[in-house]
Amino acid sequence: MKNRKPSLSIIKIGGKLIEDEQKLKSVLTQFAKIKGAKILVHGGGKAASAWSQKLGIAPQMIEGRRVTDLATLEIATMVYAGLYNKKIVSWLQAIPCNALGLTGADLNSILSHKRIVKDIDYGFAGDIDLVETSILKQLLNNQVTPVFCAITHDKNGQLLNTNADTIASELAAAFAPFYKTTLKFCFEKNGVLENPEDDDSIFPKINFTDYQKHKQVGIISDGMIPKMDNAFFALKNKVDKVFICGAKKIHQTNGTLIQL
Amino acid sequence: MKNRKPSLSIIKIGGKLIEDEQKLKSVLTQFAKIKGAKILVHGGGKAASAWSQKLGIAPQMIEGRRVTDLATLEIATMVYAGLYNKKIVSWLQAIPCNALGLTGADLNSILSHKRIVKDIDYGFAGDIDLVETSILKQLLNNQVTPVFCAITHDKNGQLLNTNADTIASELAAAFAPFYKTTLKFCFEKNGVLENPEDDDSIFPKINFTDYQKHKQVGIISDGMIPKMDNAFFALKNKVDKVFICGAKKIHQTNGTLIQL
Repeated sequence: MKNRKPSLSIIKIGGKLIEDEQKLKSVLTQFAKIKGAKILVHGGGKAASAWSQKLGIAPQMIEGRRVTDLATLEIATMVYAGLYNKKIVSWLQAIPCNALGLTGADLNSILSHKRIVKDIDYGFAGDIDLVETSILKQLLNNQVTPVFCAITHDKNGQLLNTNADTIASELAAAFAPFYKTTLKFCFEKNGVLENPEDDDSIFPKINFTDYQKHKQVGIISDGMIPKMDNAFFALKNKVDKVFICGAKKIHQTNGTLIQL
Repeated sequence: MKNRKPSLSIIKIGGKLIEDEQKLKSVLTQFAKIKGAKILVHGGGKAASAWSQKLGIAPQMIEGRRVTDLATLEIATMVYAGLYNKKIVSWLQAIPCNALGLTGADLNSILSHKRIVKDIDYGFAGDIDLVETSILKQLLNNQVTPVFCAITHDKNGQLLNTNADTIASELAAAFAPFYKTTLKFCFEKNGVLENPEDDDSIFPKINFTDYQKHKQVGIISDGMIPKMDNAFFALKNKVDKVFICGAKKIHQTNGTLIQL
């Protein structure tokens, strides 16, 4: 029997893009061209750090992850959920694309818990427990495009800073039973590179065995590791296709296809 | 024939409340007790000024209105749509009340234009042209509670700072054909005062003739004038009941009833 599920594209765009107004507008124009239901997820980490510095708050990082004290959480909420989320929404509306900016607190859409302290106390960082899809599905059916920033909540009144790649893969996993879901992680390179110094050395495909090998020899390292883990999490949860790709032509197929 | 329209309460809470965490939580608890469909509208003016000062941007005011340059608009977007809107949403979720934080750009819900320059250039201040109710009505039917901050957009990609009282009265006017609508402007006093030095000298009712008289002799002055004008705008647009009242017991009838 033919798969009759409607299509859903979940596109995650990263921090550097958000800071360059012209690039961001160009990406949003391409995003709006995607046919069918679509969700945008955006980070904005470096912008939050810049605003923290303006306010004299030094950003704390441990192993590449932001440590979120209360002051940093307030800045993140202002910059991600306020400044960038609403700029993106207003620009999408102008295209037009009927965008709705969201944190995980809105509509109780993404429930998380404060990360449990083991060796490191990450502060107000949230690990996702549940994505509530019912009202979001109705909105998608009404041609509304949700735009998520990297803030979730614990349903006890606490907002939590949450990795945007993780939000994208958890959303994709939650929608996969209802939609033929494509997940794209867009970042500054055009895909996963075999040689980090050659921007054209893009792997067309990577499966889990390849990933293990590449990781062992250091071809895949640092920030790419959690991105790959999020990609495999989505695939294990029945997401149809996952790509790690550049931000150009995001409405077309490009970059590295990740496979189980 | 009996009026069979469902009820809708639109509650506007002001700046001072937002800054006091305990008072705000108490108001939200009462707000959540309101039966039927409800919408919250919040200001936050003084908080934005405080953040502007932290960032070394001097807030500009002309005749009691904020003049919104680009830097001030960014701060307002961060503080209103980010920090305060999302705090309120996460606190309402904890009660529980299924809140959805919005600017007028989200769902293209409040369309405005940049205020036309006559004597004073108010900068990025928006005057409302249209409230788009269709998706909001579906959300209200699904027990979702919209929470609006004081930001709208022009659908050309420009966010605009918009008076929260005006947003509340325009929302009430737009929903009045579909709901039996009650509008409450909650502020630091318990109603419109006959004697500004006596907090208990609350007018139980004020009609348009009373208003003209009180304005002439200076009993009603300053910030109360635009509030009263917004109240009459709503009443002329078939809003059922309008109150100017305190923030205590907002789920009950209190304060000054405004009548045509």
